[in-house]
Amino acid sequence: MDDLQTPRRGSHDGPRAGLLADLRAGLPADAVLTDPDVTASYSRDMASFCAAGIPAAVVLPRTVEQVRHVMRTATAHRVPVVPQGARTGLSGGANASEGCVVLSLVKMDRILEIDPVDRVAVVEPGVINAVLSRAVAEKGLYYPPDPSSWESCTIGGNIGTASGGLCCVKYGVTAEYVLGLEVVLADGRLLNTGRRTAKGVAGYDLTRLFVGSEGSLGVVVKAVLALRPQPPGQLVLAAEFPSADAACAAVCAIMERGHTPSLLELMDRTTVRAVNRMARMGLPETTEALLLCAFDTPDPAADLAAVGALCTAAGATEVVPAADAAESELLLQARRLSLTALETLKPATMIDDVCVPRTRLAEMLSGTTAIAGKHGLTVGVCAHAGDGNTHPVVCFDPADEDESRRARESFDEIMALGLSLGGTITGEHGVGVLKKEWLARELGPVGLELQREIKRVFDPLGLLNPGKLF
Amino acid sequence: MDDLQTPRRGSHDGPRAGLLADLRAGLPADAVLTDPDVTASYSRDMASFCAAGIPAAVVLPRTVEQVRHVMRTATAHRVPVVPQGARTGLSGGANASEGCVVLSLVKMDRILEIDPVDRVAVVEPGVINAVLSRAVAEKGLYYPPDPSSWESCTIGGNIGTASGGLCCVKYGVTAEYVLGLEVVLADGRLLNTGRRTAKGVAGYDLTRLFVGSEGSLGVVVKAVLALRPQPPGQLVLAAEFPSADAACAAVCAIMERGHTPSLLELMDRTTVRAVNRMARMGLPETTEALLLCAFDTPDPAADLAAVGALCTAAGATEVVPAADAAESELLLQARRLSLTALETLKPATMIDDVCVPRTRLAEMLSGTTAIAGKHGLTVGVCAHAGDGNTHPVVCFDPADEDESRRARESFDEIMALGLSLGGTITGEHGVGVLKKEWLARELGPVGLELQREIKRVFDPLGLLNPGKLF
Repeated sequence: MDDLQTPRRGSHDGPRAGLLADLRAGLPADAVLTDPDVTASYSRDMASFCAAGIPAAVVLPRTVEQVRHVMRTATAHRVPVVPQGARTGLSGGANASEGCVVLSLVKMDRILEIDPVDRVAVVEPGVINAVLSRAVAEKGLYYPPDPSSWESCTIGGNIGTASGGLCCVKYGVTAEYVLGLEVVLADGRLLNTGRRTAKGVAGYDLTRLFVGSEGSLGVVVKAVLALRPQPPGQLVLAAEFPSADAACAAVCAIMERGHTPSLLELMDRTTVRAVNRMARMGLPETTEALLLCAFDTPDPAADLAAVGALCTAAGATEVVPAADAAESELLLQARRLSLTALETLKPATMIDDVCVPRTRLAEMLSGTTAIAGKHGLTVGVCAHAGDGNTHPVVCFDPADEDESRRARESFDEIMALGLSLGGTITGEHGVGVLKKEWLARELGPVGLELQREIKRVFDPLGLLNPGKLF
Repeated sequence: MDDLQTPRRGSHDGPRAGLLADLRAGLPADAVLTDPDVTASYSRDMASFCAAGIPAAVVLPRTVEQVRHVMRTATAHRVPVVPQGARTGLSGGANASEGCVVLSLVKMDRILEIDPVDRVAVVEPGVINAVLSRAVAEKGLYYPPDPSSWESCTIGGNIGTASGGLCCVKYGVTAEYVLGLEVVLADGRLLNTGRRTAKGVAGYDLTRLFVGSEGSLGVVVKAVLALRPQPPGQLVLAAEFPSADAACAAVCAIMERGHTPSLLELMDRTTVRAVNRMARMGLPETTEALLLCAFDTPDPAADLAAVGALCTAAGATEVVPAADAAESELLLQARRLSLTALETLKPATMIDDVCVPRTRLAEMLSGTTAIAGKHGLTVGVCAHAGDGNTHPVVCFDPADEDESRRARESFDEIMALGLSLGGTITGEHGVGVLKKEWLARELGPVGLELQREIKRVFDPLGLLNPGKLF
């Protein structure tokens, strides 16, 4: 804590030069980047409408000790630090603030351990989700969280935003797979939270507090993750509906009957048409909603038959169960292409992430359509329907000022709609910069005040990812 | 917050009379108990060796507003409050402190809602676990957490200690079923945390912070709980082993092969003999360990056959799969009687709750046997073996001072052993008074300091369940 008392400012090169020299003193030469052309590429994640500053430096530590050095140095210089993974986030949570140190964890990318008896993996934060998923699969194990960006996003980033994915309806989100963490605090101290055991209730659950905290409480440098046995391959069914209401009724019926699909996705008319146009998938243009349902149970064909009957009863015009893995993959293509297809409609998109109780899903969809109509915009919705988690994609042209304004207004009105239906402004993408005001609305004054006080406990100087969340 | 500025002390009846009058001003007459014979019965939970004081009053509110009144009054008078459920806890976490107000939530026992589509229940904290479990079962749903005391313990108490049970090896602990909470804070303010949606990542996870916080951060007055579809009835297998090591090897093999039992329990020699003696179950006295394994899968007989083969390969001398539900229930009787049977050996027991990685389970058992031998004590172990969660039951006579001292020493040495094996001092029973020093050891100075600061955020005056945890 000496650093706190004796800030090493005032070098003759000015404060920035002093910061850089101090950073370099504890890091390899190639781990401190200052070339503006290079650092600019670290300045933002994939969200639209989010301010980003120019970092003073980007550091790429490879060890826990180096991360501690970065945090001690930043604390000594009172310089903000923005922890960063692969910048695939959708809320600006990893955007640089002006003059900050971007702390990229991508070089800390080792899988330290995979244990099939304890069913845990111990990893560094820069491990790519798909790399871990494949490594554990080789041992007959399964790491479920599968955000769309899984081929490029990092486990550290997944922990920071508590990422979800398609699997959540059966397997839950990242939070449910994080057993323990090693964290470097703002002042460089090291904190261990949680456990590697299956159970444990010793004190407050700090592990869970860090999951989804968007780098604002500390820097995760190691994680103990829970694994599951690898399930059988899943079999997929596609069902076409003449209305979104009918598709939502099918979703409710499937869940009410006690089914446990491994995936239950919905695409609205706009999305179906965009995908159809782009990929010539031969989906009928009369389809107002497409539902995809999968099972990885011992007898998926039987489960799909039961779900197919429920879809038909709810009004499906066509029910197509896949016969095998290859056909299943083909059906899932439509869902995988959704965002890309919607992105062809306009130069830019904003992706909402509202999660409502699944009983309110139909109202969420019809309300979103009404908002799009009111603003004269194209909004396509794909939804993790089984979770009630919708991703309305607002399409717009950033060069068109009025359309941009309407896009932002629609984006906000969709969140207001979600809250009015008993939902949340973010099911899995996080708050970042994009939804700060909305977080305050969702939490209310008491909740917000307590969250801010917790932030102060961990980061009294406010150096970690400032300007995010609150 | 006016109360904070103007404490209403100094009534002519003395501070206690003022407190009681103020409590009564906002509560029904029958909701404030002060008869010492009655209040004494609220002074402690089921743990041995835990100090308990005499409460100034026991209050039994029926509404959220009444709970708020209690907390405002307690804050005004600077009187500690001990939230309490059914007092089935095993760590002294619900024990009264001297002169406190015991805030019993047992009268707030309404199930407010069960929704089979959203798969949630909304309940008050005083609902008994078994009452909820049966109510959701009637709608084809399942609330998994099943602590041994499930017929009498409350959901509020389960949340306070993040209770586990037999189901955890497949279904996890209470924490995984709490989606959202309504909490009365120390100063009477109302806080809503979390959600009723399947997913949600808006801000820090305060819900999870309250789960397992043992009433030290706030008073839970409402909970949104996640439910699952009711699984098929489970089928049980019993396997007798010639050594604890062999039984633990079978546990590891079962988990390594990717099985997902709904229950995987181990009883050591001492426990088997005690049960055998009490219930004349005809278990061979040569059995050194008994393993019980169950599946609630679509084809449990096939799963049991596979597990039976693994047990035989690990050295089981006898493998008995149940043919139906009735036989399954019979096999489970032995496990259910374990604690009662061990309690017949000596006038008193202390129940440890150490959870280790399951790869270390054999060392945990042999180490426990060594500790018992060293102290000349009887220690029987039942374990949620699939979770590595052992319950060594230290049997002793409280009238024998030396034996009592050795019992406490053994209890502590068992926790030290658990920590040395990479485990935790508490898998599901909590810290309470009993393991305070051990919590500090497990968390380390940085973790402990942060936990204390979090406590101060929620309870700056230190009125909520003081003397517990830290």
